[in-house]
Amino acid sequence: MKPIKVGLLGLGTVGGGTLTVLRRNQQEITRRAGREIQVTMAAVRDLKKAQKHNGAGLALTADPFEVVDNPDIDIVVELIGGLSPAKELVMKAIENGKHVVTANKHLVAKHGNEIFAAAQAKGVMVAFEAAVAGGIPIIKAIREGLTANRIDWVAGIINGTTNFILSEMREKGSGFDTVLAEAQRLGYAEADPTFDVEGIDAAHKLTILSAIAFGIPVQFDKAYTEGITRLTGEDVKYAEQLGYRIKLLGITRRRPNGIELRVHPTLIPEKRLIANVNGAMNAVLVMGDAVGPTLYYGAGAGAEPTASAVVADLVDVTRLATADPHHRVPHLAFQPDALHADLPILPMDEVETAYYLRMRVADETGVLADITRILADADISIDALMQREPEEGEASTDLILLTHETLEKQMNSAMARIEGLASVQGKVTRIRLETLGK
Amino acid sequence: MKPIKVGLLGLGTVGGGTLTVLRRNQQEITRRAGREIQVTMAAVRDLKKAQKHNGAGLALTADPFEVVDNPDIDIVVELIGGLSPAKELVMKAIENGKHVVTANKHLVAKHGNEIFAAAQAKGVMVAFEAAVAGGIPIIKAIREGLTANRIDWVAGIINGTTNFILSEMREKGSGFDTVLAEAQRLGYAEADPTFDVEGIDAAHKLTILSAIAFGIPVQFDKAYTEGITRLTGEDVKYAEQLGYRIKLLGITRRRPNGIELRVHPTLIPEKRLIANVNGAMNAVLVMGDAVGPTLYYGAGAGAEPTASAVVADLVDVTRLATADPHHRVPHLAFQPDALHADLPILPMDEVETAYYLRMRVADETGVLADITRILADADISIDALMQREPEEGEASTDLILLTHETLEKQMNSAMARIEGLASVQGKVTRIRLETLGK
Repeated sequence: MKPIKVGLLGLGTVGGGTLTVLRRNQQEITRRAGREIQVTMAAVRDLKKAQKHNGAGLALTADPFEVVDNPDIDIVVELIGGLSPAKELVMKAIENGKHVVTANKHLVAKHGNEIFAAAQAKGVMVAFEAAVAGGIPIIKAIREGLTANRIDWVAGIINGTTNFILSEMREKGSGFDTVLAEAQRLGYAEADPTFDVEGIDAAHKLTILSAIAFGIPVQFDKAYTEGITRLTGEDVKYAEQLGYRIKLLGITRRRPNGIELRVHPTLIPEKRLIANVNGAMNAVLVMGDAVGPTLYYGAGAGAEPTASAVVADLVDVTRLATADPHHRVPHLAFQPDALHADLPILPMDEVETAYYLRMRVADETGVLADITRILADADISIDALMQREPEEGEASTDLILLTHETLEKQMNSAMARIEGLASVQGKVTRIRLETLGK
Repeated sequence: MKPIKVGLLGLGTVGGGTLTVLRRNQQEITRRAGREIQVTMAAVRDLKKAQKHNGAGLALTADPFEVVDNPDIDIVVELIGGLSPAKELVMKAIENGKHVVTANKHLVAKHGNEIFAAAQAKGVMVAFEAAVAGGIPIIKAIREGLTANRIDWVAGIINGTTNFILSEMREKGSGFDTVLAEAQRLGYAEADPTFDVEGIDAAHKLTILSAIAFGIPVQFDKAYTEGITRLTGEDVKYAEQLGYRIKLLGITRRRPNGIELRVHPTLIPEKRLIANVNGAMNAVLVMGDAVGPTLYYGAGAGAEPTASAVVADLVDVTRLATADPHHRVPHLAFQPDALHADLPILPMDEVETAYYLRMRVADETGVLADITRILADADISIDALMQREPEEGEASTDLILLTHETLEKQMNSAMARIEGLASVQGKVTRIRLETLGK
């Protein structure tokens, strides 16, 4: 059978990795796919720099539209990232009847609905395994491996940079800023780390996981996003003393009245496997009603791990290219006419979770009674409490509380009342807590 | 589109679970598959007992051949286990042009080559996700999710019973026999636990993982199998003191001269995620050259977790039933004409691994010199050594050694020489050790 022809948009880290993996494992990959996968064209920003990737049969161009308009290309791989011109290129490739593979989480989280509708209408596939958790085949696991299940929730460490920072904060006892600088020096964090440390990158990925888990359209704009920039070394230490680890978690959960979709620092019991995922590694925990908890762990970024997912998509598309479009795996796991477009994403006020609260309180009688009274009035029950003796000569001390599950809006008003107490200094620090049990 | 019709062979634990899951999640599953999956017939051993599963449109029969010969059935699900009549039924179903889903690891490990060849010739699918690691979609992950990779090795906790026993031995400090009795009382172990505790069940599953990882035929008869029955509480304790956990691991590794295929108790560094998989849970760690390590964790047995895999296979088969047979995922991950039939499975003598050695030595000068000399002569280097002070009044003590990687046959002859020393009492206890790094 004649080779399937691939055009790459972008030859940076992931594009270069894709080329390397395809070339190195060509024989192995062909033995699996039953057909050779050939990269015949690549669009690059800098033609001179890209010469190192040159090889027999690879044409380089500076114009990405030349790739998507090339009639010889069967599959376009979009690896330039960002929204524009990535979206225009993907839409044009679809219009030209080409299958698309993309690693672009931002694009899928933001414009996935429109892109998938166009692909569906045209009878082509858009594959995006590399968009979530790098080399971990998590899209495939949820979309095809767990089809028997009503999925209850998904919780993931889906940003390697922040997991690296949090692991270092815990291990070295350093604060956020110190560790971020170190991570930037080592190349684990970008010069402008906003997308990572503010949780935006994780929210893109979570949006995609939520859609395929529950059969809803991608709705990135409704995701709640809170980063790790305000976490202190103290909170990491207190959490550990209480038997927890702090991770930046993306959590999406089915509730009777809608879907929770939120990224924020989270305390997790240290006995959970996912609490022990350290460094830049990713892991996704999925709770299905039949299978129970399953966990998927691996490298979430990097040239070859991401290329691993891109190439797996290329093999999938190659296998299914000749199949009846109606029997391919639907883009968002559920048939397009069976998506729950009306299932609302819950606003953060309506989310239910447990909490870690830290506050600075005066060392005087009655403080604890006042605080616990406020919580009891709001129907919030306390799971654990830790109060340190004040340091020599200090008139105040840290009080740490763990609560059971409650509605976020209940917690907000309780926190406002606590902050109003004369014996409580400054703001209450609140970190959400998930037990990740049933 | 009209429903796809399924016939079940067996309505025991997994069969009953499959029916329950299909009924409970029917709507969700149809939204994914795009076509209703209906169980219309089931063969059972006891018609009376099976009445509890009765429902509209389900015909029960005591003769399984009635199911495989029923022209209305599209997919036969084999859940009776064992080799006969399971094999005859599966072969007949294939001959009749039906797709097959099976959870039968024994059957696939033993007769997979013949079954897949028949299915290939007939243009039907035989799906077996449930045969390995229950609800974890590990077949799909390796066969489809990691197609970009040259896989270096796979190491798995793929038998829940033995992992439960080992977890309990460690937690409670009890011996094998005590914990086995407890596991039998709780229903985690069978009355005759041989298949589990001798590693045979794990070897069946490992044989399948090895075939799909390396593109070789299933070769169960060449697997090395050693169970956990001789493990003592002491070894579990010493391993822990050295920073290791003991797990029954199935390991298959590519070497320049062939493939390692072995099941045995194994020391693993406690910092590895897989070392922290406890209770009856399963986990499989896969090392690919592009993606690096990825791990898959979940329930490896039980009615609904296994049904989760059976139903996922049903959805896959439903989606691909109308596809060109040449573009389906090949049974053993590689195209049938691209299997490496000539790649040998290495005999245990040729396996390379590290070791934990425990021996009872006389408390006298020169013992350590004799032992370390024997190891040095055999080119075996020592990684760690632990010798306890003899108990009050005792003239001998335990000596524990950890070695670096060496050939098993080297170790065998070194052990024989050590056992020949007058100062060493009885046999040397040997447990293999894997660092599970690169």
